[in-house]
Amino acid sequence: MVTPLKNPDTLDIGGLERLIEHLLEGGIHGLFILGSTGEAQSLDYALRYELIEKTCSQVAGRIPVLVGISDTAVSESLRMAEKAAKSGAEAVVCAPPYYYLHTQKELIEYYQYLSGRSPLPLFLYNIPLFTKNPIEPETVKRIGNDENVIGLKDSSGNPAYFQKVVDLMSDQPAFSLLVGPEEVLMQSLLTGGHGGVHGGANLFPDLYVDLYEAAVEKDYGKMVSLHKRVLQICSGIYTVGESELGYLQGIKTVLSLMGICSSRMSMPFQELPKEQIEVIRERLKKLDVQNFNLE
Amino acid sequence: MVTPLKNPDTLDIGGLERLIEHLLEGGIHGLFILGSTGEAQSLDYALRYELIEKTCSQVAGRIPVLVGISDTAVSESLRMAEKAAKSGAEAVVCAPPYYYLHTQKELIEYYQYLSGRSPLPLFLYNIPLFTKNPIEPETVKRIGNDENVIGLKDSSGNPAYFQKVVDLMSDQPAFSLLVGPEEVLMQSLLTGGHGGVHGGANLFPDLYVDLYEAAVEKDYGKMVSLHKRVLQICSGIYTVGESELGYLQGIKTVLSLMGICSSRMSMPFQELPKEQIEVIRERLKKLDVQNFNLE
Amino acid sequence: MVTPLKNPDTLDIGGLERLIEHLLEGGIHGLFILGSTGEAQSLDYALRYELIEKTCSQVAGRIPVLVGISDTAVSESLRMAEKAAKSGAEAVVCAPPYYYLHTQKELIEYYQYLSGRSPLPLFLYNIPLFTKNPIEPETVKRIGNDENVIGLKDSSGNPAYFQKVVDLMSDQPAFSLLVGPEEVLMQSLLTGGHGGVHGGANLFPDLYVDLYEAAVEKDYGKMVSLHKRVLQICSGIYTVGESELGYLQGIKTVLSLMGICSSRMSMPFQELPKEQIEVIRERLKKLDVQNFNLE
Amino acid sequence: MVTPLKNPDTLDIGGLERLIEHLLEGGIHGLFILGSTGEAQSLDYALRYELIEKTCSQVAGRIPVLVGISDTAVSESLRMAEKAAKSGAEAVVCAPPYYYLHTQKELIEYYQYLSGRSPLPLFLYNIPLFTKNPIEPETVKRIGNDENVIGLKDSSGNPAYFQKVVDLMSDQPAFSLLVGPEEVLMQSLLTGGHGGVHGGANLFPDLYVDLYEAAVEKDYGKMVSLHKRVLQICSGIYTVGESELGYLQGIKTVLSLMGICSSRMSMPFQELPKEQIEVIRERLKKLDVQNFNLE
Repeated sequence: MVTPLKNPDTLDIGGLERLIEHLLEGGIHGLFILGSTGEAQSLDYALRYELIEKTCSQVAGRIPVLVGISDTAVSESLRMAEKAAKSGAEAVVCAPPYYYLHTQKELIEYYQYLSGRSPLPLFLYNIPLFTKNPIEPETVKRIGNDENVIGLKDSSGNPAYFQKVVDLMSDQPAFSLLVGPEEVLMQSLLTGGHGGVHGGANLFPDLYVDLYEAAVEKDYGKMVSLHKRVLQICSGIYTVGESELGYLQGIKTVLSLMGICSSRMSMPFQELPKEQIEVIRERLKKLDVQNFNLE
Repeated sequence: MVTPLKNPDTLDIGGLERLIEHLLEGGIHGLFILGSTGEAQSLDYALRYELIEKTCSQVAGRIPVLVGISDTAVSESLRMAEKAAKSGAEAVVCAPPYYYLHTQKELIEYYQYLSGRSPLPLFLYNIPLFTKNPIEPETVKRIGNDENVIGLKDSSGNPAYFQKVVDLMSDQPAFSLLVGPEEVLMQSLLTGGHGGVHGGANLFPDLYVDLYEAAVEKDYGKMVSLHKRVLQICSGIYTVGESELGYLQGIKTVLSLMGICSSRMSMPFQELPKEQIEVIRERLKKLDVQNFNLE
Repeated sequence: MVTPLKNPDTLDIGGLERLIEHLLEGGIHGLFILGSTGEAQSLDYALRYELIEKTCSQVAGRIPVLVGISDTAVSESLRMAEKAAKSGAEAVVCAPPYYYLHTQKELIEYYQYLSGRSPLPLFLYNIPLFTKNPIEPETVKRIGNDENVIGLKDSSGNPAYFQKVVDLMSDQPAFSLLVGPEEVLMQSLLTGGHGGVHGGANLFPDLYVDLYEAAVEKDYGKMVSLHKRVLQICSGIYTVGESELGYLQGIKTVLSLMGICSSRMSMPFQELPKEQIEVIRERLKKLDVQNFNLE
Repeated sequence: MVTPLKNPDTLDIGGLERLIEHLLEGGIHGLFILGSTGEAQSLDYALRYELIEKTCSQVAGRIPVLVGISDTAVSESLRMAEKAAKSGAEAVVCAPPYYYLHTQKELIEYYQYLSGRSPLPLFLYNIPLFTKNPIEPETVKRIGNDENVIGLKDSSGNPAYFQKVVDLMSDQPAFSLLVGPEEVLMQSLLTGGHGGVHGGANLFPDLYVDLYEAAVEKDYGKMVSLHKRVLQICSGIYTVGESELGYLQGIKTVLSLMGICSSRMSMPFQELPKEQIEVIRERLKKLDVQNFNLE
């Protein structure tokens, strides 16, 4: 879930409520806050804590809430895990520390320390583009033996990596294997993955839910057609902004055009300029997205 | 300055006091805390705040204290800058945010926002190995126009980068250009740099001070001979640990052998195993380092 | 196709003939020689020329032969294209020059020069892992306008890249879009790709042909099941060798166990040691590959 | 030495003769042809052979000629080494194969094979920017034990790498350690290096010779002042072209302005456009380079 912001340091509370209801109406099975798409690292800690509380309270148990607790200091991650537990979240999600470079041995040490102290079950979060520290498949296997570690969110976008993890974890079918980039959702569902956590689901949650359900029903023809829809919509919206987080500028712009929440970004990201907002508005029209009213 | 730790979450106060006095006796001209060598990102915020306070109080104005405030959330950086100002520090030092990837335009935006609100003058901190976001020379020039931005610490280890910055800033001789890696200290002093901020200075501060003063006196022969000494000592001590922060494991080990402070590291870094400590002890003997008593 | 070698500088002629017949029996639709899996860059030029001639003569027009002409010197690429044309090949395949770094503008210049002089139609070959020079999607589009440029082999393994190219080339349906890594074959066939060129097809050509035909028939269930088979076989065989070309050591080892050709590699690659050959033999047994006799 | 070209496939013979005489007048101690600055990889083999012959014949034993034989196929490297030997060259220089990725073990195998068969003594050539395959310091040490391997040209520009090699080879003082990037020449001479092989020496050979001789005489003040001159000239000329080989476009442009040889480049590099040539002409004036007549 994106983090709706009134300004870089203030939550857009109304937007947050509307966004959560929009997602629940779309039928999503769980909510992941404070991930990379949630701009977690750029947010004031107080705001992160407020977001955990408000989200859990708005969701009110209707679906599980997963809370990102990635940090460079493990004690701060644990503090956030405590907050998540008290607020009623279901699990926490943690990427490797992302300032220094670490050996796999250090990552094992890190996650064992964390999972031994976390009041909530833990998802690993592999996102080497941002952390510089990939969690190697053998490391996932090793840490996954800990019963408080219940899954992996893989945002590497690397099908060979994901496949190795699927193979290694095949003797632990309850270990949940989710992917991040929507380009690889269909393939991962076809080859052993259990689901996805996608930025685009902020906009069109039902599309991703339908794709997941087509996989459950082995309706391959439907999967392919929904997958193409995913790619069209995303390639239309994610490629306009020139920031390295252009995809997120695109998502927040559309959410704003949909009247759901503000398009403000955290520092130092900027909102799209007017001309680029118009480009997105035009592309949405061509994509024939009719399940919402553009403002 | 390294951060002496009793355990991953507790300062080694006695060690901190001894280390600061050791450095002052060595004649250093300033003290930089909470940089990469200070393990800042791995430390609990409360501990970072305590370190700022204790260091400033121990130094008691004898030399300027510079405080690292690098963070992924600009509001947290500003909070640390406030703490540094109240504690009596002279300046703050800030690397680019290090989770997301950023355009140079975003870095300019970021630093202008920060310098406009920082209660203390600001040093830029270029360390792309850890931040993934280099501060390009033209960006240094652009941000350097702000009068609250007073210098750059370049830890890239890239002589071509540093030279470009020297050229671009040649019309602002008061802008302080410091380097991180000790391998490039001599060359930078010879070609327009103003000084260095080095991990090895925790161990042998007088060596680095002497090299700096040889540069001021244009005693090139002495510079070369001190430079060789720097390289010998460092290559002996920095290459034992197998962690990606092996150099820091080496420094903390020697500090412990010198009886100055504990060799504990922050999570998830580990102390060197016994055999490697012995390797370092042997190397120190061969290096004929006699200005301290190994325990 | 791998290049069967008696020793690093001599073709294994008998092996070459048996391999070609094995592939034709497997029903492949075309043959690509002198690609990365063919060790082209490590081979003496005289041997490359001999391979072109012998392959075309053995195939004798039963299927099209595509010849890799990648080189750092464009005149050498053209010389190989001439040889391919005289020998009866159908097309040539060329990666960007791979020593220097090049701008996209230079790549456009390069390919326009090449396609204007090549006696055979040209496939682009995107393999940035080895060339360091990716052919950006917009560059494919631009060069693809030349009528002598008839397709792209994408070995990036990057689904987002491939999807962008599919989108950009959607107005030129005759432009052939093939992928290299077998992990992405199924997904590419589902989303606009036209086929694959795979190392594993040296071993089990019918498996890949069946997967392709299942795609043509939109038999998605069969595709998924064959895709899993592809992944199992490959992950079993490709991960034994410790060389950076371990997958190729694995393929050549199995070909040798199958009695098809020698497992010798070009300099400086080495054959697998005995213990690793045994590992591969065991894995093949577990994989229940019964369509050939292990020696 | 750059390779003077009349057009991408033809030597500029007159230019070659003038360039060699210009270099000899500048007092250089040796000549390295067919390196990266010589555009070796982009040149037709016939042209490379012609260049070896013509250069050796023009130099006529006045100084040693070193010939680059880097290739992806070891047999082609050996063929060039034979040609160099017959033409009267003194040594050959060879980078690791640059298409595939190689382990250090493979590089050791490769160089031992090569040095055992080369008719001329061999220099290693470390240039990971272009080869992707660094020669690790321990690998240099290992290969350097072979008596036919007589030195290393390090074009990594990485002072820490060079220093490690200096340390490891300190027991073989006859092993020649040369650096490529002119930015690191002074520092390497001060810390154990034996000389340099620089693109800028095509233009101002005496400047680099003087810097070398100042090092021999331990005239550190002179070294610093010549080093600054090197940096000024280079930063003025190397930064105009937008190609990845912009520094070489700059060098060839100045050589053409000096009336020495053509500024043509090999495919797919392009000559600088007129406006950029004018920028270089202006910068040369400001640099007050008066030892030649601009045309």
